[in-house]
Formats: sequence, C-alpha cells, structure tokens
Amino acid sequence: MAKLLTGKEVADALNKETEEKTKALKAQGIVPALAVIRVGEKPEDETYEKAILKKAEKTGIDVDQYTLPQEASTDEVVETVKMLSSDRDIHGILVMRPLPLAIDDEKVCGALTAEKDVDGITEKSMAALYSGKKDFFAPCTAVACMEMLKYYGIDPAGKRSTVLGRSNVSGRPLAMLLIKADSTVTICHSKTRDTAEICRNSEIMVVAAGKAGMADSSFFNKNQVVLDVGINVSPGGKICGDVDTEAALPEVYAITPVPGGVGSVTVSVLMRHVAEAALSSCQSPDPRA
Amino acid sequence: MAKLLTGKEVADALNKETEEKTKALKAQGIVPALAVIRVGEKPEDETYEKAILKKAEKTGIDVDQYTLPQEASTDEVVETVKMLSSDRDIHGILVMRPLPLAIDDEKVCGALTAEKDVDGITEKSMAALYSGKKDFFAPCTAVACMEMLKYYGIDPAGKRSTVLGRSNVSGRPLAMLLIKADSTVTICHSKTRDTAEICRNSEIMVVAAGKAGMADSSFFNKNQVVLDVGINVSPGGKICGDVDTEAALPEVYAITPVPGGVGSVTVSVLMRHVAEAALSSCQSPDPRA
Repeated sequence: MAKLLTGKEVADALNKETEEKTKALKAQGIVPALAVIRVGEKPEDETYEKAILKKAEKTGIDVDQYTLPQEASTDEVVETVKMLSSDRDIHGILVMRPLPLAIDDEKVCGALTAEKDVDGITEKSMAALYSGKKDFFAPCTAVACMEMLKYYGIDPAGKRSTVLGRSNVSGRPLAMLLIKADSTVTICHSKTRDTAEICRNSEIMVVAAGKAGMADSSFFNKNQVVLDVGINVSPGGKICGDVDTEAALPEVYAITPVPGGVGSVTVSVLMRHVAEAALSSCQSPDPRA
Repeated sequence: MAKLLTGKEVADALNKETEEKTKALKAQGIVPALAVIRVGEKPEDETYEKAILKKAEKTGIDVDQYTLPQEASTDEVVETVKMLSSDRDIHGILVMRPLPLAIDDEKVCGALTAEKDVDGITEKSMAALYSGKKDFFAPCTAVACMEMLKYYGIDPAGKRSTVLGRSNVSGRPLAMLLIKADSTVTICHSKTRDTAEICRNSEIMVVAAGKAGMADSSFFNKNQVVLDVGINVSPGGKICGDVDTEAALPEVYAITPVPGGVGSVTVSVLMRHVAEAALSSCQSPDPRA
C-alpha cells in the first residue's frame, strides 16, 4: 500500500516556524498582519476565511477582514487594495478570487504592491516566478506542494514530474517551481492526447485539473509520488480530489489524501508568507523616516 | 532525408506583412521607429545591429542607434531607456543584452515601458507570457520558432513538444508559447537525466541549450520536427547549431538548418513587433492631447 503523505505534519512544522518568526517580530514591536479582502458571500470564501482565522490565531498573526458587498464596483475594490498596500501596519494582502464577474480582476491585482502579495497574483510576482530570478511570493497552493515534497524527503531534482493542469493558481506556478528545483517538467492539459501514458512514465505526478477522479489506474506506476491538488465535491456530498485514491493506493509509492493533504498545508504557507513579508518590511527602510 | 525548414521563406512572408503595415502607417503620417541601445562594442551586437538595419530598410522601419561607451553607468543606460520610453516618435526599444556586468540589468529592464518592449524583457511582458493572458511581446527568438511551425503547417496542438533549455531568452518563453498553442510541453535542462529518451518520444523538439551538437542521433525519431535555436561557432570557425544536423538529416521528418533557420527569422519578427507597436500606439490616445 502507498505511503500516505498527510498534510498535518507539514502544516504543523510550517506553523511552528511561523510562530517563531512572529514571536521574534513581536519582540521588536511588530505584529505581522494579513488583510483579507472578500467581495460578496461565497461559501467557499467563507470556509477559507475561517481556516485562515484559526491558523492565524495559532501562529500569532493578526487578520483584518475587509468584506465588500457583492455589488461593489471595481473602483471600490481597487481603493481598498491601494489603501492596504500603503498601510505600514499591514504586511500581507489576500484577495479572495475569483472576484465577481463585474469586477476587473486585472485592475485589482494591479493595485496590489508585490511586497505584500502573499498569494503571487501581481505581475511582479508572476514575472519573478516565471523567470526564476527574484523572490516574491508564489501562489500558496503551489508552494504547499513543494513543502509536501520537502517535508517527506522527496527531492524533485533530476526526476520526471508531470503537472496536470495549466491554471495560474496551481498548474503554471507549480511547473515553474519544479523547474527551479531542477525537475524535468511536463505540463499536460485538456488538449493533451496521451495524458495517462505521460503520467505513467513520471516519478512525480501533480494533479491540478479540477476534475474528480480523473487520474485513474492507467496513470500510475509503483515508484510514483502523487500530489492531488483537486478539491471537488462528489455527488454524495463528500470532498474528493482529482485522483481516484482507492485505485491509486495499491499502485503508487506515495500519495497525498484529499481531504487532509495539500489543501491542509495551503493556509500554513499563507501564514508563513505573511510572517516573511513582515520580516522583510522591517528590514527595508521606512519611507516616512 | 529530412525536409529542410529554411528561414528565408518565413522571413520573406513576415517582411511582406510588416511592409504592408508600415505603408499603411506612413499613409497616416506615422513612421514606425525602433531604438537600438548598445553598450560597448561586442562583435555579436554589431553583427545583430547590421542585420537589423538591413531588414529595417527593407520593411520601411526607422532605426535610431544609441551607442553608449563600455564604461557607461547604470544611470546613464536607464536614462536613455526612460527618455526613449516617453518619446512618442519611438515605437519599439531593443536593448542589446547581455549588458556589461557592471550594469544593473534589472533596473534597465524596469525603465522600459512594456508597450515598446519588442523583445519581451519587462516584468509586464513576462507576466503576460507566463499567464497566457494579455498580449505584450514575447522574446523574438521564441516567436520566430512559432512562426517557423506556422509557416510550414506544423500545428503543435495536442503534440508532444520538448524544449531543451530553460533560459529566459528562449527556453522558458518557448515553453509558454507552446503551452498556449495547446502543445504538451516538457522542459529539459542540464539536470535532466534522460534527455535523449524524452526527446526521442517527442513530436516536436526545440533545442535551445547553447551547446554545439548536443542533440545527437539518440535524440531523434522519424516523425520528428526539430527546431535548432543554437548559434555556436565550431572550432573550425563555422557557425553551427545545437543539433548534429548531419546525423539528424536521415533520421527526422523535418529540421531547421543553422545558419539559415530560426536565427534568420528573428530579425523579421523584431520588425513586425515594431510595426505592431506603432499600430497600437496610434490606436491608443495621445496622453498629451
């Protein structure tokens, strides 16, 4: 049976690291603070927000919630982001996305300062991630996958990795992080003809396709590490991933469960990003001084 | 024997397209203009500049040359880029890179307005290319490869493409353009263990590794299209690519020669980018008006 790569241990280790950082910051009089901007009342956003509040309390991070009505205009959201971008007491800003369709997502992302962009949505963050050059923050889910590998001692260097999905939230950033980690990366997507064969020939498979159970037994091999990024709701109302976990368990080397896998690490990554942003902000000179 | 995918026909077709654009622009009183910034006297830069001047004349584009001494400071280069960025009569800016080591490349790129960034070096251009969203310009060499495929009727959609090399000049941008074109892309690099096998299993192989003859007969298959991006000088002083062309000719379906392949299309892509930038500039309102 496959080794289960559960997220809890990884999250705990990250939380401990963040807690130490926030303690050190507080000793200097700095309280690391995250602003969460939500527009409207989507249940997923509210669930995510609750998880953030819980982890923030655990790790010593302040959370300021900015909840705008569903009918908010682009200008109102942009103004909120701008205001928080220039607020020296806020170190990280998370915008709950996707935003309502009437809101110009690009303008909102453009108003965010890259230094506080703890989920890697600004052009500066994307350019840095793409070019592999400078360190801004990458999207939390992608970083959570890398932390999983790191915690469980799986070095992607030189290994063949396949990423299923090319979204800006997980597929593309993951591909860039894996390339930076010296992995040989293949990106598959809806137009790929021989996805199963390509996956079967890879040592690491990351499934971020957003389609319940799409990775079946034809995708697996005995030495494979499978990271399941999918979060879907089954017809029976159960949370499940993009991988057919039952089919995978006897056939792969290791797999992350859903729930309790990558998803449970994401918020801990977010917290660490906030602590890191706070740390950088107190190392850079105060422009008002 | 493999079909030779020569660059001349592709370049001619692009030049014709550009010529038509510049004619239409000139009828409106706009002369598309490219500024070329060179620091120092590197022979490669001077060769490239000569090729630019020749193609520019052919396609009706003005070229302004800004040549700074080898000892120029970062500030001087940045000031030149800024001055040209705000000059309404300049539509495209090309900075010859790599710049001398003493110059802060990032600051220079940061001074360039994305709309005139005809070789895709700014953060805005990179973020757009990475995210597959908005159209700024991608690096000319990467676009030249895509134009080669297009001209010769090779649709990368659904096909397995392997890109050898992960540089920001060719490997990474090519990977992003191929993903956008619905190809299934694998990125190989110096840390890849089984490069030959991966290449052998791909329908399109783009070699941008910067190493003469590194792709030998173990990399090929009968149905393969090979794009050779390398430009190296052999010990005998001859220009050669990254592919062992002699070995490839009897074993692949089609291959671009070096010289006379991708490289000969790059300058034509640059010219088209300048014409397109000029076209966009006259469609966007004059901020002085």
